[in-house]
Amino acid sequence: MPVKQLQIGVTGQGFYDFTAQAQAVVRELQVYEGLCSLFIQHTSASLIIQENADPAVQHDLQNWMNRLVPEKDPCYTHTAEGADDMPAHIKCALTATSLAIPILNGRLALGTWQGIYLWEHRRQHARRSVLLHLSQG
Amino acid sequence: MPVKQLQIGVTGQGFYDFTAQAQAVVRELQVYEGLCSLFIQHTSASLIIQENADPAVQHDLQNWMNRLVPEKDPCYTHTAEGADDMPAHIKCALTATSLAIPILNGRLALGTWQGIYLWEHRRQHARRSVLLHLSQG
Amino acid sequence: MPVKQLQIGVTGQGFYDFTAQAQAVVRELQVYEGLCSLFIQHTSASLIIQENADPAVQHDLQNWMNRLVPEKDPCYTHTAEGADDMPAHIKCALTATSLAIPILNGRLALGTWQGIYLWEHRRQHARRSVLLHLSQG
Repeated sequence: MPVKQLQIGVTGQGFYDFTAQAQAVVRELQVYEGLCSLFIQHTSASLIIQENADPAVQHDLQNWMNRLVPEKDPCYTHTAEGADDMPAHIKCALTATSLAIPILNGRLALGTWQGIYLWEHRRQHARRSVLLHLSQG
Repeated sequence: MPVKQLQIGVTGQGFYDFTAQAQAVVRELQVYEGLCSLFIQHTSASLIIQENADPAVQHDLQNWMNRLVPEKDPCYTHTAEGADDMPAHIKCALTATSLAIPILNGRLALGTWQGIYLWEHRRQHARRSVLLHLSQG
Repeated sequence: MPVKQLQIGVTGQGFYDFTAQAQAVVRELQVYEGLCSLFIQHTSASLIIQENADPAVQHDLQNWMNRLVPEKDPCYTHTAEGADDMPAHIKCALTATSLAIPILNGRLALGTWQGIYLWEHRRQHARRSVLLHLSQG
């Protein structure tokens, strides 16, 4: 089954829900039962499954993480790529680069309140690449 | 190979070892060599592989994490579901929602001191759902 | 396809790049398109994908993590295995025990700046075991 690429446009720090695009790949490849593995090809943005009901959860997560990993920390020596670069690498170390979600009845078997997000850690606009590998059975 | 569901009863914050239940699924499906992917269908409980020898490790992990992510932090705006809800979401962001463990000789190929745990972040009693996808070969 | 073991020698805390060894396994098993799952059989060392361009990133990551999870924290009760043992378990809880990377065109489909590292959290010399499971298609 071919590896698929999703390109996700981001406009700065925050959560970008791509659950619908991932479900569409499962439908397109007609996997009824199996596994969907996701991989982000970057070291300054993460994959995360989080609550999709109350937007305040994402707001609080972002604020908490920015406080834990602030910009302009005097311990950083890697500063040439911008004040938000080293914090982005640290946030990636604390979160997920790959995820795997079972497929049941032709759909990603997410819990009731789970959405799949790209968590962008940098401030700039960018296109991010997420690879999906699906297996049947 | 069918996706299997484990239901794990929890009675509040802490670590729930389900290594034996996961090994039983590997035996039941008669996978001799392959991969077992685990996925938790919640955003306030995590999967974690940790030392299973000294219970003090879990005790210290819980205390350390509760200090890093305390309840009643003034930065939280998502407070309607209880004081332990937003900390639970943050703890999930810092830990794993999915894990994959190779299968060798008909068993999960864990290291000598590794156990598989559900890490419950909320205080209430609940039944948590973990999905297992196995692949042969 | 057989599960493969990489043994990685470490000489204390830090990042050990094993991207080339992992790519060699993909070549040896002649997987053209598929998935490579990695699993570390320890609870005091992690797997991490990070930037491989500027060594200052790893330096800053290590310093930041050591400040977040210091030795000799009075909250630790698990101290019999050395001052660096409980911090190592906490660092493992915050980072990855398993990773999965798609395979495309006979190679791990890493982003331009991504390398695969073992992140050793203890001070001693050791041999660490990482298992690789590959699937074709």
